[in-house]
Amino acid sequence: MVHTGACIASFLGQGGSRKYHLTWKWLRYFKNDRDRRDLITCGAAAGVAAAFRAPVGGVLFALEEAASWWRSALLWRTFFTTAVVAVVLRSLIEFCRTGKCGLFGQGGLIMFDVNSTKVTYSLPDLLAVMFLGVIGGVFGSFYNYCVDKVLRTYSIINERGPSFKILLVIVISLLTSCCSYGLPWLSQCIPCPANLAEQCPTESRSGNFKNFQCPPNHYNDLASLFFNTSDDAIRNLFTSGSEKEFHISTLLVFFVAIFCLGIVTYGIAIPSGLFIPVILAGASYGRFVGKLLALVSNLDVSLFALLGAASFLGGTMRMTVSLCVILLELTNDLLMLPLMMLVLLISKSVADIFNKGVYDQIVKLKGLPYMESHAEPYMKHLIASDVVTGPLVSFSGVEKIGNILHVLRVTRHNGFPVIDEPPYSDDPELCGLVLRTHLLVLLKGKKFTKQRVKTGSEIARTFKAQDFAKAGSGKGVKLEDLEITEEEMEMYIDLHPIANTSPYTVVETMSLAKAAVLFRQLGLRHLCVVPKTPGRPPIVGILTRHDFTPEHVLGLYPHIKPHK
Amino acid sequence: MVHTGACIASFLGQGGSRKYHLTWKWLRYFKNDRDRRDLITCGAAAGVAAAFRAPVGGVLFALEEAASWWRSALLWRTFFTTAVVAVVLRSLIEFCRTGKCGLFGQGGLIMFDVNSTKVTYSLPDLLAVMFLGVIGGVFGSFYNYCVDKVLRTYSIINERGPSFKILLVIVISLLTSCCSYGLPWLSQCIPCPANLAEQCPTESRSGNFKNFQCPPNHYNDLASLFFNTSDDAIRNLFTSGSEKEFHISTLLVFFVAIFCLGIVTYGIAIPSGLFIPVILAGASYGRFVGKLLALVSNLDVSLFALLGAASFLGGTMRMTVSLCVILLELTNDLLMLPLMMLVLLISKSVADIFNKGVYDQIVKLKGLPYMESHAEPYMKHLIASDVVTGPLVSFSGVEKIGNILHVLRVTRHNGFPVIDEPPYSDDPELCGLVLRTHLLVLLKGKKFTKQRVKTGSEIARTFKAQDFAKAGSGKGVKLEDLEITEEEMEMYIDLHPIANTSPYTVVETMSLAKAAVLFRQLGLRHLCVVPKTPGRPPIVGILTRHDFTPEHVLGLYPHIKPHK
Repeated sequence: MVHTGACIASFLGQGGSRKYHLTWKWLRYFKNDRDRRDLITCGAAAGVAAAFRAPVGGVLFALEEAASWWRSALLWRTFFTTAVVAVVLRSLIEFCRTGKCGLFGQGGLIMFDVNSTKVTYSLPDLLAVMFLGVIGGVFGSFYNYCVDKVLRTYSIINERGPSFKILLVIVISLLTSCCSYGLPWLSQCIPCPANLAEQCPTESRSGNFKNFQCPPNHYNDLASLFFNTSDDAIRNLFTSGSEKEFHISTLLVFFVAIFCLGIVTYGIAIPSGLFIPVILAGASYGRFVGKLLALVSNLDVSLFALLGAASFLGGTMRMTVSLCVILLELTNDLLMLPLMMLVLLISKSVADIFNKGVYDQIVKLKGLPYMESHAEPYMKHLIASDVVTGPLVSFSGVEKIGNILHVLRVTRHNGFPVIDEPPYSDDPELCGLVLRTHLLVLLKGKKFTKQRVKTGSEIARTFKAQDFAKAGSGKGVKLEDLEITEEEMEMYIDLHPIANTSPYTVVETMSLAKAAVLFRQLGLRHLCVVPKTPGRPPIVGILTRHDFTPEHVLGLYPHIKPHK
Repeated sequence: MVHTGACIASFLGQGGSRKYHLTWKWLRYFKNDRDRRDLITCGAAAGVAAAFRAPVGGVLFALEEAASWWRSALLWRTFFTTAVVAVVLRSLIEFCRTGKCGLFGQGGLIMFDVNSTKVTYSLPDLLAVMFLGVIGGVFGSFYNYCVDKVLRTYSIINERGPSFKILLVIVISLLTSCCSYGLPWLSQCIPCPANLAEQCPTESRSGNFKNFQCPPNHYNDLASLFFNTSDDAIRNLFTSGSEKEFHISTLLVFFVAIFCLGIVTYGIAIPSGLFIPVILAGASYGRFVGKLLALVSNLDVSLFALLGAASFLGGTMRMTVSLCVILLELTNDLLMLPLMMLVLLISKSVADIFNKGVYDQIVKLKGLPYMESHAEPYMKHLIASDVVTGPLVSFSGVEKIGNILHVLRVTRHNGFPVIDEPPYSDDPELCGLVLRTHLLVLLKGKKFTKQRVKTGSEIARTFKAQDFAKAGSGKGVKLEDLEITEEEMEMYIDLHPIANTSPYTVVETMSLAKAAVLFRQLGLRHLCVVPKTPGRPPIVGILTRHDFTPEHVLGLYPHIKPHK
């Protein structure tokens, strides 16, 4: 859902699809990097809000996990998005309550209402909860470790081609089916409890008690967890006043099975999330611990299940505030808030000792040049010019078409410095930065001149700002599409009108750590490094996101030991 | 409470008080700007968490309103703070439930529990709620307008001396007393409803029904609101199933009285908050509207009261997410969330048309150089060097003591550029930035030399990093405390060891808007403006927060019309 929301937002950000006639004129205002990023953030927030029916949780998820660069305006934009989601969701639920949508719309706005339990706790309960948090953190980080290893294996398999992908999916499906069907045989039949409002055993629908080859009026507790929708299984585990409903061995078996299945399922070529398996594993783990500690603690096992889910989520995702609010909105249990906060903090802190959060791991695995919001400690010992690599490719203010085309062909840089040289200035000086995409648009316009002259105003008249708007991915002007004749190759074009004349710059002697903070805080793409002393070329190099990654920096300076 | 929390945190940030022997050794690690700011943010969060028993709301309040410069690490630090607050609060409430603390600890962790009402709503209800939000926004901005005017008047009165301050407090107290005692006479006595669990009329304690000169078994509804603690008055207004308890004229009178009293009370020399009066006014307004719209809408008047409070809060404070979560935590009513979000968004948007949020107004009134997180539109038309004012005062790498003392005396600058000149470098070049406080510490150390020589390593040996730690406010080395002899005045000191050798710089031609974004995003104090072309002094000027304020910029360029 999160991914879907982000995808729809990204689609809107690209101005819709012209191919499928899904485009609107006003969408063009979003055709720039910042608005597209903001839209994607809002989309992710809307996805969480819709998936967990947690509008405020969605905002916080976007804030804590999705947006790497936060602006205060974003806060109330995401809030607006999720408010709309909440109102629409609420009306649809209201509409579906009449039974027109099948199983959709069950559960109301609060999915797992555990509000009925009266919560009072004392010191032993607190200790029990802390213990739960510590172990949950250990399991959470172990989960991350396994997911990482499995994903690495899968990426090797998936690279071999689509048939291998399908094979993998089939194998995992078979495994899941075998577990679901085979494991309940281990469990014994339990007679239905008396005085139930519900039907027992439940037949032909999702519910608390599944018959599964048992005699009438008996149910199989393990089957009740496996042969349900995940929603119902979670609800079963969170149900209060049901200490006897699940046997302790059942919980253990279910926990181990779901833990392993969750790990092997993520990363195969079908959409599968992280949240629900983790909540399921955590809830069964919590209930298990609750049963074990029943002598010490007076808390209901259902609350242990909830706290167990929280500890697992904290241990894998490493979010605090957003998880807390999402769980709060899922379960409507405000009185549990202090305990929930405690568990989340403990499990996050414990898990942080071992490894990184699961999202960070995936980002790293995919090789995306994600920059941490803080600078790495070893960066303090380097200066900005230390990590500038490769020969600098720059243009003059009025440049020959042939040169531009050559440079665009042989390099894959996205930004090029423009340097004004005599006779346009006394000394060579940095005029600005031009982007590859803008260069391509400019070249397509073919406003070339035979002589080396400034034609800025004419160019400004020809193009509209809209022409330089960011095109959809895979759209835009491509280098291969340009048809430049031999004669035109010898002509000139004025780059001043499209140059960003005040790019952010740092002096070459600036500490790399400070440059990294600047780069990250301002959300830059290119950072110009300028020389400290005059009398040298006016620019030393351009830093991009890649130059700040540990791989690049430590590749250049292998003797530096990064602190873990 | 918020203020108290922030004050305690600030106190810790200053390393405790040596005077009162309230100091610890580990506190010295916090003796720097960043940690002190973070501590204050955490303190404010803890304050909100304790005042409203809303831990997550506290985190969000700190995020949305208190912290102007947000770091992701701060999120989970404030979360930790409020988690501790929640656990402590919870245990104290538990302890106080035994009746050992008088009226403290009443109400449990959820102060105004309205969870009992079943919320279902349809389209007319939504329209009614939108109407409530629009009017709430208008009233909220009017409230801000009045508070601003009243504060301006009060600051003139308060400046005249303490006796005027006390007089003002007495006048306002008298006014409040007259209102509280006089207005209930306007209301009629109402017979107590039958079948009540509570005592009616309530005697000798805070409660729902106050007798106030009525015959037995009757109560005065206006007195029930006035002669209660604010907590109980709010709880009364939020009570569901009590349509008949308050007369419509009562609500109107109470609303007008509280609205006016709230405005005149804020800013006098006693601690009085904004939240509670605004919630009271909003709740009575909401209940009033609920009574008016009873024909159109099926929503309970208590929910109208809650939404009215939300609309007023949104209209005055202009926060969205944090208010939403605080109200959620106050009332434990998750089903109201969609409506609450809607009301908050509408009232905030409506009020934003008229003026700024009340906190922004107060910051502006106090003349604090607060920088907006976005650059003002008119800044796009200026460049960084346009706002550099005053002659630049700089030091050489090895400077004469007399010069330093003279400069420190005649200017009030906090940062000075250090420029290396021949023979220490080929050309004059910017070596770094020294801070006034560090200069004073250095001068006190008296490591002077007769000749103009570099003594960096010796100075580095003499001082420890800790010596330059930020001292508590009013502490630190003062210029008057320095005793420099005539002979020493002619000596030299090496400034290199204390210079920040990689200050953030911008080129003089950079757009002022971009410089402002850089300044704000990085949370800077000084920003060096360097020349674009070589052959000039290596620094053009230093920009501080003041240089980015509208007053300064528009003072320099009066012809620029700022957009409203």
